[in-house]
Order: sequence, then C-alpha cells, then structure tokens
Amino acid sequence: MRAARFYGPHKPLVIEDVPKPRPGYGEVLVRVEAAGVCHTELHFLNGVLDLGVYPITLGHEIAGVVEEIGDGVVDVKPGDRVVVYYYVGCGKCRYCLVGEENLCENPKAEYGFISDGGFAEYVKVPARNVVKIPDNIPFEYAAPIGCSVTTAVHATKKASPKVGEYTVVYGVGGVGFALIQYNKLVGAKVIAIGRRDEKLRVAKELGADYVVNAAREDVVKSVLNITNGRGADIVYELVGSKETFSNSVKMLAKKGRIVVIGYTGELANVNPLDLVVKEAAIIGSVGNTLQELVEAVNLVAEGKIRIIVDEVAPLERINEVLEKLRRGAVIGRAVIKPH
Amino acid sequence: MRAARFYGPHKPLVIEDVPKPRPGYGEVLVRVEAAGVCHTELHFLNGVLDLGVYPITLGHEIAGVVEEIGDGVVDVKPGDRVVVYYYVGCGKCRYCLVGEENLCENPKAEYGFISDGGFAEYVKVPARNVVKIPDNIPFEYAAPIGCSVTTAVHATKKASPKVGEYTVVYGVGGVGFALIQYNKLVGAKVIAIGRRDEKLRVAKELGADYVVNAAREDVVKSVLNITNGRGADIVYELVGSKETFSNSVKMLAKKGRIVVIGYTGELANVNPLDLVVKEAAIIGSVGNTLQELVEAVNLVAEGKIRIIVDEVAPLERINEVLEKLRRGAVIGRAVIKPH
Amino acid sequence: MRAARFYGPHKPLVIEDVPKPRPGYGEVLVRVEAAGVCHTELHFLNGVLDLGVYPITLGHEIAGVVEEIGDGVVDVKPGDRVVVYYYVGCGKCRYCLVGEENLCENPKAEYGFISDGGFAEYVKVPARNVVKIPDNIPFEYAAPIGCSVTTAVHATKKASPKVGEYTVVYGVGGVGFALIQYNKLVGAKVIAIGRRDEKLRVAKELGADYVVNAAREDVVKSVLNITNGRGADIVYELVGSKETFSNSVKMLAKKGRIVVIGYTGELANVNPLDLVVKEAAIIGSVGNTLQELVEAVNLVAEGKIRIIVDEVAPLERINEVLEKLRRGAVIGRAVIKPH
Amino acid sequence: MRAARFYGPHKPLVIEDVPKPRPGYGEVLVRVEAAGVCHTELHFLNGVLDLGVYPITLGHEIAGVVEEIGDGVVDVKPGDRVVVYYYVGCGKCRYCLVGEENLCENPKAEYGFISDGGFAEYVKVPARNVVKIPDNIPFEYAAPIGCSVTTAVHATKKASPKVGEYTVVYGVGGVGFALIQYNKLVGAKVIAIGRRDEKLRVAKELGADYVVNAAREDVVKSVLNITNGRGADIVYELVGSKETFSNSVKMLAKKGRIVVIGYTGELANVNPLDLVVKEAAIIGSVGNTLQELVEAVNLVAEGKIRIIVDEVAPLERINEVLEKLRRGAVIGRAVIKPH
Repeated sequence: MRAARFYGPHKPLVIEDVPKPRPGYGEVLVRVEAAGVCHTELHFLNGVLDLGVYPITLGHEIAGVVEEIGDGVVDVKPGDRVVVYYYVGCGKCRYCLVGEENLCENPKAEYGFISDGGFAEYVKVPARNVVKIPDNIPFEYAAPIGCSVTTAVHATKKASPKVGEYTVVYGVGGVGFALIQYNKLVGAKVIAIGRRDEKLRVAKELGADYVVNAAREDVVKSVLNITNGRGADIVYELVGSKETFSNSVKMLAKKGRIVVIGYTGELANVNPLDLVVKEAAIIGSVGNTLQELVEAVNLVAEGKIRIIVDEVAPLERINEVLEKLRRGAVIGRAVIKPH
Repeated sequence: MRAARFYGPHKPLVIEDVPKPRPGYGEVLVRVEAAGVCHTELHFLNGVLDLGVYPITLGHEIAGVVEEIGDGVVDVKPGDRVVVYYYVGCGKCRYCLVGEENLCENPKAEYGFISDGGFAEYVKVPARNVVKIPDNIPFEYAAPIGCSVTTAVHATKKASPKVGEYTVVYGVGGVGFALIQYNKLVGAKVIAIGRRDEKLRVAKELGADYVVNAAREDVVKSVLNITNGRGADIVYELVGSKETFSNSVKMLAKKGRIVVIGYTGELANVNPLDLVVKEAAIIGSVGNTLQELVEAVNLVAEGKIRIIVDEVAPLERINEVLEKLRRGAVIGRAVIKPH
Repeated sequence: MRAARFYGPHKPLVIEDVPKPRPGYGEVLVRVEAAGVCHTELHFLNGVLDLGVYPITLGHEIAGVVEEIGDGVVDVKPGDRVVVYYYVGCGKCRYCLVGEENLCENPKAEYGFISDGGFAEYVKVPARNVVKIPDNIPFEYAAPIGCSVTTAVHATKKASPKVGEYTVVYGVGGVGFALIQYNKLVGAKVIAIGRRDEKLRVAKELGADYVVNAAREDVVKSVLNITNGRGADIVYELVGSKETFSNSVKMLAKKGRIVVIGYTGELANVNPLDLVVKEAAIIGSVGNTLQELVEAVNLVAEGKIRIIVDEVAPLERINEVLEKLRRGAVIGRAVIKPH
Repeated sequence: MRAARFYGPHKPLVIEDVPKPRPGYGEVLVRVEAAGVCHTELHFLNGVLDLGVYPITLGHEIAGVVEEIGDGVVDVKPGDRVVVYYYVGCGKCRYCLVGEENLCENPKAEYGFISDGGFAEYVKVPARNVVKIPDNIPFEYAAPIGCSVTTAVHATKKASPKVGEYTVVYGVGGVGFALIQYNKLVGAKVIAIGRRDEKLRVAKELGADYVVNAAREDVVKSVLNITNGRGADIVYELVGSKETFSNSVKMLAKKGRIVVIGYTGELANVNPLDLVVKEAAIIGSVGNTLQELVEAVNLVAEGKIRIIVDEVAPLERINEVLEKLRRGAVIGRAVIKPH
C-alpha cells in the first residue's frame, strides 16, 4: 500500500510502498478514507518536535472503514465507519488506570507519532481504539474529530470554564474553532484572537463573541477593554511563542488559567511574582482521552460542533498541503484522502 | 505609641512615635504582644515588592490582646487573646464573595502591606479580623500562624495533594516548615530542599521523609532518584529564582503541580513544550483566607503543626533581626515583642 | 407602612400597619417595588415549614429602590435600583467564611423567613445585601431573581452538569423554568416533567429538549426511553413527595445525582442498595449565596435567563394570589407590588 | 480442582470438584493462596443480594501466585505474587473509559459475583487484573486488600474528607478498620461506632479518636457531643439498616456527607426537608477501581494500613467461617486457604 513517510526533520514526506498491515489478536484493519493534516506535522518537519522515530507514516486524525478484524474482536465488525483514537497506552500505569492514555508512561503505540499513522491506505489498531461514527458524519469531517475537536474538549476540561467567564482562544484554526464552539456550549464568553480576517470571520460565525486581530491591535489592551479591565478568566494558548505566552499572562484576570496547547521551541519568560499576585495557573494540555473522543464524536453528530474543512487532497499532494498549512493559508483543516 | 516605620526601599526601618489608633464602628484595638518577621519584609526593603505606600508600619503576623472595642462589636471583648487576619476585603467583589479576600479587587486594608501593621504597640482592625486563640498557644507562637502557617495551608489547597504523592518543599523556613507538616498530615510523602544542614535537620524532625541539601547535591537528580524516576507530584516553590523555577519544572512528574509562593524579582524561563508534554500546572499562591486562618489556629492548638521560633526581640532590635533573616540565619521565625 | 403579616400556620396573611423601619449603621432602607410569591409561602401557611417566628412579614424575593442609607454606607446610594439578598449570616462561622450564608450556623436575619420581608412597603437590610440591577430589568422581573433564579443557579452547582448529560427538571414553575435555562446554558440535555400542558409548553419555549406530562405518562419509563435506557444523570427534585422521590431514584443513571429542592412533609423511602449499586448521590440544596445572586442578575440582564411573570398584584390581593398558587394555577411567578 | 460453590440463597456452599481453568489469550492462571471472606457472602446466602448466577464459586478477595500465563501476556510471569482485581469491565462504556469498572454497563466478569471466584484452588483472570504484591505482604494479608482495604479507599474518595473533619465509621470490621486508618491518614478525626467492645478496642488501636458502643450508647447524642453539637461531616454507613440510615442523617452536620456502603434489604425513611436544610449528601459507593487497588497495595506494603486477620481456615471449613461471620464473631477478616 502507499504511505507518506517521514524521514526526519527538514525533509519532505516521501510517498512510497509499504507492506499492508495485518490485524493481530484484538486488532482491526482500518481502510483510511480521510486523514486530517494537523499543525503538529509542521513541528515534526521543522524539528521542534523530534521523537526520534523515523521513517514513519505520519497522520493522527484518521477516519475510515473497518476492513478486517483479528481474533478476539467482538464489538467491531468489517464495514463499521470509525474514527481512530491515536494513543495506545500500557493500560497499567497510573495515568492509563484513569483513562489518561495521553500521559501513559510506557505507550504501546501512538499513531502518526511513534507508530505508523493515517497518511496511508490502511492503518492497524486495537479494536478498542476505534469509535463508531454515525452516517451523518462524512469521513472528511470525521477525521479532524480525532485530534482537533477532541484536543479542544480536553483542553477545556483543564480550564473548567464557568458560566459567564471570559475565555480567550489565542490562535484560530482547527483546534481554535472547536474551542470557540465548546466554550460557548458551556456558557463562557469567547474572545478569539487571530492574524487573518478571513479566519476571524469564521470564528465569529462559529460563535465567538469578540474577535481581535493581532496583526493590527494590541491584544492585551483589547482583552482588558472587552472585559472591562477584569482580564480574561481563561486563555487557551495555541501559539506558544515568547510573545503570546507573555501576553497571555498580562491579559489574565486574578485566578485566571492559561491552558498551554501550542509551542514553538522558543523559551518564554515569566515573572513568578506575576503568577503569585494573580494566583494565576498555567496548565499544559496534550492530546486527549478516548472518553473525550467519544464525547467529541457525539457533539459533531448532534451538530453542536461544526468542523471547517478547507480542502480534501489525494495522498500525492501531502507536501503541497503541508506547505499551505505552514503559510497559514488553511483556515480550518485540510484533509488527505488516500484512496 | 512606638512603631517601626518603613520609609521606602533600601532604608532601615525607623522606630518612632505615632498616634495610638482608636477603634471605630465595628473595630477593635489590639495590644500587640508578638509580631512575626516574615521574608516579605525583606522584599519591601530590597524593593522587589514595592506597593508604593510609605511611610507605613510593617508587620503582618500579629498576635495580641483586645484592649478596646468600638460600637457595634458583639462577639469580641476586651481581654480576648487573638491573632489578626491581615486582609480586609471590600466584601462585594467576586473574590470576597467566596471568602478570598487575599485576591480582593478593592481591598480596604492589608495590615503590614498597605495599612499600618504589627511592628507597633497597637493595631486597629475590624472585629471580623481577629481569631481567638486558646490559652495553650503563647503569643510568640500565635503570631506566625497569621502568615507562615496559614500561607502553607492556602498553598497546599492549591495543590490538592493526594495520599502517597511526592511533595517537594523547595525552601525551608517559616512557611516551609508548616508545609512539611501540613502535607504529612494529608498523607503525602515530603521531600524538603534547603541549603543549611541545621534547617534540614529541623525539617526532618517535623516529619520530612527526605531532605536534600541544594548546596551540595543536584536537586533535580536527587528528587528523581527519591521518586524512582517518576518526579515530584507537587513542588512548593518558596524561592522563586530563575534557577529554582527551572529546576521545579525539571523535577516534576506528569500532571505535577508547582505552587509558586516565592519570588525574587528575577525572570524565569519556561519552555511551553515542557508544560504541554507533562500536562504540568504552575499555580501562583498569595496569602490566605480567614477560613484558613481559623483552620491554622486549630491545627496549632491541637499540636498538629509545630512552630519554630528562633528568638523574641524587642521592637528596637527590628533592623538587626531583619539583617539576620537576610543572612539566612533565622531557622524558623524571629518574633518582635513591642511591649 | 402597610405589610402582609403571617400569624402562624393555617391562617391567612393579615394586611396591617407596622412602623416603617429606620436604617442603622451600615444599613439601607429599600422601598419595595416588587416582591415575588414563592412556593415556600405555602409551606409556611400549611405548616410544613414552621420556623416558629411570627407574626412576621413574609416575602423573600424583593426588588426596589434604595430610599435612605445609614451611617457607614459608602457603595450604595439613594435611588439605586436593587434586588435584595435575603440571608444575613454571622460572617464568622465556617459556612459564612466561604460565602455560604444560606447555611449559617447563627444567622442574623433572613428576610421573609425569620425577619420582616418584602410583602411590605419598605424593608431594611445591610448595604452588603443589595445587588444593583441595570435599567433593562423591570422590578417585577427583578424580584424573582432573588429566589427562583438564584436558587436554580445554586442547585445546578450542586449537580455540576457536564456537556451532554441528561438532566431532569422534575417540577416546572418559577425555579424549574430557571433550571431549564441554566442547564441548557451549560450544555446539558433537559427533560422537564410537569402535570399541566400550559406549563410544559412554556418549558419547551424556554429550551427544554423533552417534556413529560406526569398526569398522563409513566415518568420513569419516559425518562428511560428518552435516555435510551441509560437514565438521567441529574434529577432536580422540586416536588419532594414520597412518589417523586422514589421515581427520581428509579430514573437515575449510574453516578447520577438527585438534587433535592422541594419537600412536602412526607417521608420518602429509599433502599440503600439502590444507591450503592448505582453510586447515586442525593444532595440537598437550600437557597443560594450572594455570589450566585450576582451571577443570576447578570444572566437575566444579558437575556440568558428569561423570567415568566404571570401577574402583578397589589398587596391587598396577597391571599388571593397565594390561593391561586396553591391551586397550581400560576405558571411562572406572581409578583406583589406594595405601592 | 476443589471449589466452594454457591447454589442459591439459603443453602450452604458445596465443596466440589470442578475443572481447573486454562488461561486464554491475555489471561493468567492464579494459584489461590488466600481468599478473604467478606460480608457480601452473607448477602448472597441470605438472598439480600441475588444476582441470579449460580452455581458459582464465591470469593472476591483473592491473593496467590501466577502459575501459568496465556498468549500475549508480557508483563506478568509465572511465580509473581499477586492480588486479584475482581472486576473485568467492557473497557468501552463511559464508566470503564475513566477506570470505573465497578460501574461497567456490560461487565465481562466479576470474580466471586458473576464469575467463578477465589474459594477454589485456582482462578483465571486477565493479566491486567493482577497487581503484584511485595514479599513483605503475606498472602493472608494480601487477600483482604482486594476488597476491604480498596473499598475503604474508594468510599473515602466519595467523601473527600478535609483536614480536621469529623468522620464517623458506622460499623467496624474489615472495611471499617481500613476506613479508620485511611481517614486518619488524610487528617480527619475519626469516630468509630460498633456494638462489641473487642472490635472497638481494635478500632482505637488502629487510630480511631473516639469510639461509641451502639449497644449501650445513644449514637446520635454521642456524635453530637463529641463534635460539640456540630455533627459529623462524614458518615460511612457500613450497616445500611433502617435505623442506622436514619441515625446517619440525624448525626450529620450541615454540608455533611453519608457514604452508603452497607445494605440489609430494609427500606430506609428519609425526610427530604432534612436533606434540604442541611444540604446533606447521601452517596452510594460500590466496590473499587484497579487504580485504588494499586494504591491500597502500596499503603499496606508501606505499613500505613494494617489488616486484622482473625483466622486462616482451609476450604473445607468455609461454611463454619461464614456462620461465625454471621454471628458477628469475626473481628477483622477470616481468610480461606484452599491449598
């Protein structure tokens, strides 16, 4: 089968033939119908995230059809339409025991990270790692649930927004759009910050109460104005640069929480005294749990979270799509269709 | 009456005569029997904490006897032995409404910070701000409850230690000793880090399971060794330097929490990616609430938290005591006795 | 001034002249423009709730204009439009210290319960107990915020609904309608149960996803059907009869929560084993906090919670209105206008 | 192999020969070295708990040695000393996804409940269901960890005791003794209630601050006296009779929590108004999670929780031991040794 392979930082992905996987005991083979292209791929390519595992097939937002099942699989059957949960934890560490496989101390697999992922015709995963999707979700919309929507659900749980709290989504795109919608869903007031008007227009359509264009406006001042001087109760930091990190602390209200999702490789500065006097909390958020994926699938199925798909491209165009993403020209998600 | 007055950074306190305060409606006059000398006084003197309010009487760890009560005071009477809660919130902001006067948006008073404090013969406070102490707590032990013990209680609540979690008290002294004892009380395993063997010896006596001398040992390696590679679940960062902040992140387990209590004026560096992959939380903690002061008084009364008092000095020796504190030569608390 | 006075169970209220109160230190005099008639008044009249304090002026949902202020009042002034928080806690017990005056061990006042309330031309309260209302909320809509909306906010916090959870509002009316809206606001799915179609129609308009008419349908079966057999995650028990209590346990999902708000004087039966196997939680909820009143006022001001007012009646018609409420003929709230 | 089989309520267990199980894929065979006799066995025998599955081998507190492993087992090996986690959840329902297999909607197995348990020479379980025990825990002390200690850990988490809270352990024995110790470990004040002085003596030795003999004392009055009228913050209801349930509500403080663990088949009465005015919570607790078993094993290994074993009996004496338990003559745990 064909797959887009990563051979290390600063090299384009290579489309090549690899053996089609065979499902073992408790595993299923998924024919990939759609695989979302996440910002994380850029971090692999630019070397900011280097897990040292290559060559490898990238792609962790995976939707498709179960084609074959291994022995011992009872609740999944060929023909099932599914989205893939990309973590396979050890099942026994203190994180796995409460369902936090995203923090597993000894992961067995992580598709598109340390195990072959979805930029390929097929992917093999444990039966437990597929979540069925209803017929009203097309595959190209199902794939981004696997990371962008579910990561937004996870990050929001870290922040526990309360009704009426001011919530800043600092960085719009796949995860940011989901954050806007999910935070509206729990009663927060949402301020979206971005640098492109076309993305901020979408942010507004998806429910953001306020938008701030960081290319033109002083974001700290804007947030303080919008919140009548009180500051933001929550900032979802999707960028993670020195500048955005520093702004996040400045725009924060007392008892505010910054959920850090993005990173750039840059070191940020922080004055401990600023955290002390505000009792601010800075909380990292990585990936998501299987429970959250189930929740995310339900929310998309019920129309409570809409996904923005810019384009669906064949596997051959993967490098082109990655370049477009790098330029910031993808508004929501670009999706690869390997077949 | 005599008071030790602060005239701005880099100047010694001045002992001078000031008018004895008179209690107004709802207020009480406390004859100060003991006032603890907190590390924060050094931050006033070195200008790291500059609230712009001077001249002012410092001293926020205050114990004494009610001498006079104003109109409308019903549940406090002359002769009551009390410790003072040093915040007076507005009572109506969103923080005060849940008892978090330490975060009040519009504080009415803060003794020893923006209002005249306890390095004086008398202090005047609202009746609500005194907590009765039983006879088995001498004044010199009661005073440090007002900040050091109660701040430890507050900081611990930010971290929510669970039974068996590894908890690092990074910096030993007044607050650190209380943290050690309170964290033992809730079932955590405590690692104390300090630079002086005599302080670490006290840390051990008060219940620390492990001690690490930062002057001789690599603290990150030591904590990783002690925790079998897992890292600390909680770090109470009592120093707040660039180095200790960075070490705190490094020694942290996944889902670990750093509670920031100390600060030095130095900027710290943090790589957002480090927070992301560990889902680390960095949480500021400032002061304490009246509820926590009540709890702290009970704990000391029941003998569950012991206070270490190095010396009791007259008001005249305040600058000398501050200099001793600055040199790191105070093990627990030095206390001023203004009468 | 005129006031509607309660002289004990099973007697109609008596409209009579009483002295107009004078505000003391820290107090304000509110000219009552509207006072909501709550179901609790019926419990006074039928003796189910007997606090032993009478004669007394009932009425705890109070809105009006500040007419006079006492000494020491700084942040409230004559002419302010306000709603009254009806609890005055001691300020020092362990409940008051965290803002839970509704549980105060030693309350100083409770308007309309143990202190003279709002079915009168004037009421005198501490300045801290008035919350300003914006001009876009008419008095007759402001009054019911004081109890029905705020009680709904309080009860919901007891249940902590999560996105997508099934929430049953068992009993529609003033509090029930607010519960429907607040639970929708935080992303829950709401099932309203009532006995009158006209009330259920309003429930639907206010956002209930499903309605069940208990006069015609088997409520347990209906809830199980709606939830695909899973049961309700939350039941707000607004009735509190033997039958509704028992149904609430039966319709509950595993880890479900019943928040008990209503009572009838009847004893309910419960089989401990039913609670055990479901890990069900039954949680009492009484009144509300000042913080929640502030939140409720904001929600009504922003149009996020709509209040249904059936009629505005003069003080003279109070007994007639109470009788109408007793018959179940009030859909949302009846409000008394004493001037 | 020999096993003690349950043939339905009101019949003694039958010791008979059954086929020795063979471990399948991912499973291990455990040679049972000790199996604790829990109060739940009596509920099977008296028909209060009737799951409709018999004949079946009872016994859910199981410790032993891994004798054989099936295919696909990598982290367990023959010779490992282990305690068994007795739930096998579906792994996909909303409870399993967060590690709450005790609430699984569709359990695959539950040893000693709906699947053959530990009153037998061997038991076969998934590899994930064994937790290694260190050499310093003898098997007869390891077995009771599987239910009595871990159930106490689970129940305590439902109640979230805070430092200094008054905690009543209403019913002493296997679970009660563990509750006393675990609640002391997190800083609570513990009141143990029982009917036999020899059990209450052990309760004291294990750390109970107060003991009340229900056979001689008015338990409600005693608890109110001990708590200076405030009432208990937490009651662990281990009996579950009409009388104890009612007493639990009466002895509860405002915001108190009753964790219901025991049951008798009797219906209890509750006045909803009592729950309302106290904002009391009644919370069911069933079994435990694998995470909690890991925690419990650590606590016993570290000597923080001591287990009381009355006697170790051969399989043949099982009915005799059950009869002794029924008479209340077992102080802590009786343990069966099938080999």
